[in-house]
Formats: sequence, C-alpha cells, structure tokens
Amino acid sequence: MRMYDIILAKRQGKELTNEEIDFFIKGYTEGTIPDYQASALLMAIFLKDMTEREIVEMTRAMMDSGDKIDLSAIEGFKADKHSTGGVGDKTSLVIAPLVASFGVPMAKMSGRGLGHTGGTVDKLESIPGFSTELSKEDFFHQVAQIGLSIISQTTNIAPADKKLYALRDVTATIDHPAMIASSIMSKKLAAGSDGIMLDVKVGDGAFLKTLDEAKQVAKLMVMIGEGMNKPTRAILTNMDQPLGFTVGNSLEVEEARATLKGQGPKDLSELCLELSAGILVMAQKFTDPVTAYQALRDKITSGQALQKFDEWIKAQGGTGYEFKAPLFSQDVILNKEGYISRIQAQAIGEIASLLGAGRLTMEDSIDPSAGIRLYKKVGDPAGGRIATLYTDNEQVLVEAETRLLEAFEVTPQAPRQLPLIYGFVHQADEDIVFERYEKGEKS
Amino acid sequence: MRMYDIILAKRQGKELTNEEIDFFIKGYTEGTIPDYQASALLMAIFLKDMTEREIVEMTRAMMDSGDKIDLSAIEGFKADKHSTGGVGDKTSLVIAPLVASFGVPMAKMSGRGLGHTGGTVDKLESIPGFSTELSKEDFFHQVAQIGLSIISQTTNIAPADKKLYALRDVTATIDHPAMIASSIMSKKLAAGSDGIMLDVKVGDGAFLKTLDEAKQVAKLMVMIGEGMNKPTRAILTNMDQPLGFTVGNSLEVEEARATLKGQGPKDLSELCLELSAGILVMAQKFTDPVTAYQALRDKITSGQALQKFDEWIKAQGGTGYEFKAPLFSQDVILNKEGYISRIQAQAIGEIASLLGAGRLTMEDSIDPSAGIRLYKKVGDPAGGRIATLYTDNEQVLVEAETRLLEAFEVTPQAPRQLPLIYGFVHQADEDIVFERYEKGEKS
Repeated sequence: MRMYDIILAKRQGKELTNEEIDFFIKGYTEGTIPDYQASALLMAIFLKDMTEREIVEMTRAMMDSGDKIDLSAIEGFKADKHSTGGVGDKTSLVIAPLVASFGVPMAKMSGRGLGHTGGTVDKLESIPGFSTELSKEDFFHQVAQIGLSIISQTTNIAPADKKLYALRDVTATIDHPAMIASSIMSKKLAAGSDGIMLDVKVGDGAFLKTLDEAKQVAKLMVMIGEGMNKPTRAILTNMDQPLGFTVGNSLEVEEARATLKGQGPKDLSELCLELSAGILVMAQKFTDPVTAYQALRDKITSGQALQKFDEWIKAQGGTGYEFKAPLFSQDVILNKEGYISRIQAQAIGEIASLLGAGRLTMEDSIDPSAGIRLYKKVGDPAGGRIATLYTDNEQVLVEAETRLLEAFEVTPQAPRQLPLIYGFVHQADEDIVFERYEKGEKS
Repeated sequence: MRMYDIILAKRQGKELTNEEIDFFIKGYTEGTIPDYQASALLMAIFLKDMTEREIVEMTRAMMDSGDKIDLSAIEGFKADKHSTGGVGDKTSLVIAPLVASFGVPMAKMSGRGLGHTGGTVDKLESIPGFSTELSKEDFFHQVAQIGLSIISQTTNIAPADKKLYALRDVTATIDHPAMIASSIMSKKLAAGSDGIMLDVKVGDGAFLKTLDEAKQVAKLMVMIGEGMNKPTRAILTNMDQPLGFTVGNSLEVEEARATLKGQGPKDLSELCLELSAGILVMAQKFTDPVTAYQALRDKITSGQALQKFDEWIKAQGGTGYEFKAPLFSQDVILNKEGYISRIQAQAIGEIASLLGAGRLTMEDSIDPSAGIRLYKKVGDPAGGRIATLYTDNEQVLVEAETRLLEAFEVTPQAPRQLPLIYGFVHQADEDIVFERYEKGEKS
C-alpha cells in the first residue's frame, strides 16, 4: 500500500477502504508518512468529503493510535460529557456530582485550558488542596467509593488526532464537519466511557460559528458514537454570550457550587439539568428526559447534589472554599442607554486570559483568582456596572476595561432573545429535535 | 500576507491575486513556506483549478525564481523547441541545423535523460569528441558564427518548478493540465528564446495519455506564451509507438543524420519538417507553413541541412561519426502471424534503459552505443526480425528480449492507422487545427 495511491483515490473522489484509512493514520502517527503527503490528503478529504463509513473508520483509527482507558473495572454505566468549548462553561463541575448523586459513575479525564476557553482541571485546581493528579488506582478507588472523580488527562490519548489537528491548523483544513467530528470523538471514545453527552456550542464565542455547521457536526458525532456502539447524544447550545456570570477559575467554582444549591444563573442551571438529564436517560435511569429533569431538580432542592460535590472535592484533597483573593479588582461602568444586544463571548474569554485566568501557551501559569464577574445578560438594559475585573496584574486593567466595554454591544431596542438551547440530537438518522426552541417547554 | 490565507482562498475556489501567487512561489523556493502548506495548496489548486491569469502569473513567478538566460546579444529571432517527452525522439538534432540553415539561430540548452525518455545532451555526447559543456562566451560565439549550438543546461533554471514538481510527484498532483503547462513553460521561458515550438506527445509512451488532456495542455501552453508576449505554437503528435526506428544515443544520432540526408524514417522526417516549418513561420521567414515545409525539403535535397549539421558537430569538438561499438548485439524474432497493432513506446524506452542507453537516477552512467534498432512500424505484418538489441551488458539480453516481445501487440487484421500528427495549435483562443488528420495534406 502506498500513501500516493490513497491521496490519488481521494482526489478522484473515491471512497477509501478501512485498510487505507488505517494505513494513513498509523503511518502518519509513526512518522513514516510525511506531513506534506498528509496535508495533501487532508485537503482532498476537505474538498471531496468522506462517507459515514470512512468517518467512523478514521475515528476508530485515531482512537486506536494511542492509549485507551479501560473503565470496565467500574460498575455501572460510565458516562462522559464533552463541550466543544465555550466561555464561562463550568457545566462539568455541576453535572458530575448531579449525575453521580443518582449512582451513575462519572470517571472523567479533563484537559487544561488554552486560549480563550478555560479548562475544567484549571478550575478545580483553584480549590485549595485539590489535586487532579491521581494515580490510576486512586482514581478507580474514588469512583468506586463516592461515584465520581475528575483528573487531569496525562495519558497519550489519540496522538494521531493531536498531530493531524496541528497540521490542519496550518493548512486551512480545520473547519470541516467530518474532520471536526472525528477529531472530538476519537478522543472521547479513547477515554473509555459507555456513553457520551455532547454540548455543541454555536455562535461568536464558539468554535462552530453557525447553527448549520453545528448541526452537521453534532449529527456526525452521534453517528460516529452509534457506529462504535457507544450511545451518544448532543445538545446544540447558544454561545453568543458567556455562560453564567463568571469567567475565571475560582469564580467559576463558586458559581458552580451556587448552581448546585439552586442559586445559580438561569442559563447555566438549565443547561446543566438538560445535559444531566440526557446522561441519565442514556444510563437508563429514566426513560425520558422530562422525568429525569424533574428528578435532577429535586436533587438540588434536597441538598444531595451539593453534598455530593463537597464529598468529591474533599476526596481529592480540597480543604474548603477559602480561595486566594486577587490583589486588584475594578468595576466596569457602561455609560450607554438602550439594551445589551450581544456580549462577545470570545472577547470576554480573551480578556479573562489577559487578567491571568488563562494561558496562551501550555507553559504559562494561571492565576486562580483572576477573571471577570458579569452583571448583565443579553436583553438587559444597558448602563451602570456591567462587570468587575479581578487580577494580580494591575498593569492590564486599563486594556482589560477598554476591551470589555468593546465586547458589549448596545442597541436602542431590546434585541430578539435567542434561545439557550437550539435543539437536541438523539439519533443520527433522526431530524434534530427543536423542542425547547419551538415549543418553549420547561422554560 | 499569510500562506494560510492563500490556501484558504483557493480551498474556497477564489481567484488568487498576483501578489499571493508571487508570495507562494517566492516563499516556497526560499524555504520559508513549508512543504505541507505547499502540498495543501497544490491539492486545492488541483481540485478548484486556476484562471488563465493565475496560470500565467504562476508561470511568471516560477520563471523568475531562478536564472534567466539573456540571448539578446544574438541577432535575429531565437527559437526554442520543446518536446513533452517521447521515445526515440531525436527531432532536436534534426530541427536545429535545419532551422539554422535558414539563418534563424538556434541557441538551445537541453537536458539529460531520465527514466524511459532520452535526453538530447546524452545523444550528442555519444559523438566522439563532442562537448556540451561550453562557456557562455563560446556558446554565444558559436551561435554568431554558425547559427546554432546546443549545450547542457547547467544554470539554475526555474528552481521553484523543480521543487514543486518533486512535491507534486509524491502528492498525486502531477496530472493537472494547468500545472503541467505552467511547469513546462516556466522553464522554456526562462531559457530566453523569442518563440517556442512545442511538440506535445500523446499516447502510451508519453506523459499525456489522452488526446483530450494533451489538447488542454497544448492550448494552455500557447495561452501562457501569448500572455508573456512570446509566440508559441504546438503540434499534437502520436506517441503510441517510438518515433523513427532507433532508440539509444549513437543510434539516434545516426538516424538524425540520415534524416538530414533525406534518408530518414517517414514519421521522423515528417515531424521534423512540421516543427521546423512552425518555427520558420514564427520567425517570419515564411508567411505560411506549407511554403516553409517545401523550402525545408529543398534544404535537405540540396545537402545544405546535412552540411549545417556537420559544421555544428565539428564546432563543438565532434571528430566524426565513428561511434563506440557495443560489445553485444542480438536480433529479436517474433513468431506470430497477423499485423503489428501497437508497439508500447514506454516499454521500448525502458528496455533501452535496461540495455544501458538511459539512466534511472541522475548518478547513473550511460552506454552511448546501447539501444534498440526496430524494423517494424504499427500496421506492418508481424513475423520475422522485429529488432536488434545493442548492449555492453550481456546479462540483460534475455530480459530485454522477453520484454521487447511483450511490447509488440499483434492482431489478425491490420489495425486502423493513427495519424502521426493529430493537430496544430496556432493560437490559444482558436480551435485546434486538424489539417493533417482531417485533410490528409502533405502526407
């Protein structure tokens, strides 16, 4: 088999065999296939596309290219949840204890943040004493004991995807639905869960900018899950403004904890309940999401969800919620009349990074207390205090304030409200369900 | 300007600006743009194509990437002739003295052979004493004195094309008409002539396998020439059997010389006259090819063409035509009845290489006397002696004979005769003229 013939076949619009796909992924991972041949194939795939079988096989080959986590020692349906990346997205911190409080184990590996989106591991590490570096034995033991654990992903998961993603990033072949879907799913499938709940973000602050594109990617990911016999569902959610009111590590932990007490922001609470309901249905704890949703609410009202959260934090060394305080804080006042029509989520994420909450390269360190507290949502009247900035680095405050004011768009009339949740993908061959958007249920 | 954006634009089917094309060619030649970005762009170009302006600019940029020969010191219209590569193609050896005998200077740089096609320089070097390594001064002086010189191309002509061709060769992006046309023309245009006569070979033994593909490439090359204000014409010719009866360096020199005496094979003689006529019309020595064709015949009949050839050989050190003799020769007998329907030209070229006439890598040495003399043409009755093999390497004779017999295809009935010349391209925006094929003129 020759890489040349594989490139030629795809250039001619032919369907690649499983053997050809495996040959490419294996050879590229091992370095026997050079970058220039891989990038030619990626461009041919971009312009000639892949069939569903090819997409599933590509995902399987990338999944098989590195370590695969074996969670079979943990009893029950192990669910995983993945977000395509948002700003202020602390849903994992809420969903993990919520789901675990039903006896559905959450054994999750998570990443650190890069660029304008934060990482769950960074958020958890803002809790004094909390460790994300557990041994495999301790990780399994903790899940067996209390039903959940989130640790830092240190294993060699899907190196083929890592290498291909870096190549796509410099050859203008990132934004292809099948390649995006395959990339995400290869990593999630290697993480060993029995089912995957996907939060596919759409909009300005998200990787996927349009609903059409997000729909395609969501359906392809669910199709891949089905192709691998792993139940997979997706929710398409709005990322035209940050999720909740906080962006920054310890700020987000506090907000997550408030949400588990029933005192969280409406959008964050709603999304966490929807994602958790999806997981409980996949785990066959409930037959329908509406019942699951109600049961999840009850767990919050009864305090059991919060109790599970605290139990978890303690199990991984957390000593409480006395967070490090930032050296500087500053309110931002918006002197405009009208209504907030948009809060540029990506810009907010970048400003939080500037304040110290994120990193530009993997070598940068993070300030756990840095970040932004917002006081407004799209649709609120403009004017007055819109945010407080927190940082240890006084020098960036002026720039942060200027950029934050620019991130708020104001119109004379109240804008048309976009839904938080656009729709659900339960099965790949089914049309996307727009129940919330169209019927206004549960909201 | 970023290479990423150039790849993206072409991926989206946009037309690249001249600045973008120049940025790419310059950056890739200098090594600031990596192979993996170049190959992604090449695949995008392959699948999204280029406009005529883009093709001309790409050619110009590749032409400008290295040395450009300045022939302006030579008076008159300097013509160049290029063949897309055939087997047994010794036309340059015939055309150069023919054209020069009309006072139209031929100052030509030529390459060495690689693979199944021979190089003009290799053929000339089989002549005892002949040197292709002239200084620039001697080259110019010789052209001024006797009107022609062919030397070995040692300058750095179109390095961008060289690098891109090597990349296309391993990324399945060779066989694209615009890229083929641009590649050939960038080199020919850098060689400094005032007009270019192209012999575009079609068929089994040629780079371009179908007439449609060859037509496209021919028209694009003529269009590029026009775009650069360099008169360019093309002839589409059949390469479904070797040209003439000999393949191998000194064998081909002998056949070229016989052709200049009026004793050459019909196909070779006809093609040389057509190509020469095209050059004389471009040089405005004649207003139409029919008159030029007749005048060229007269130069052969009068002995002036042969005289010019011998004058040229002597000027570059040739001491006569006492060629080195091969150590071994062997006749090949075909025991079949019927008619020869095809002589696989590429196979014949490869067998000649095997016998020592060609090289597989640029480091290989060549045996000037090795090669094949054929006794049959397509349409001739099969049976009897079809070839003599010449070599210094006795060990390859058995394999060469077996492969040669396989290269001859025989059918019970006489095959439909394909024309030697399919048509002419005089102008890019004009339909291809099929005068010879359709009207049977001059043959």
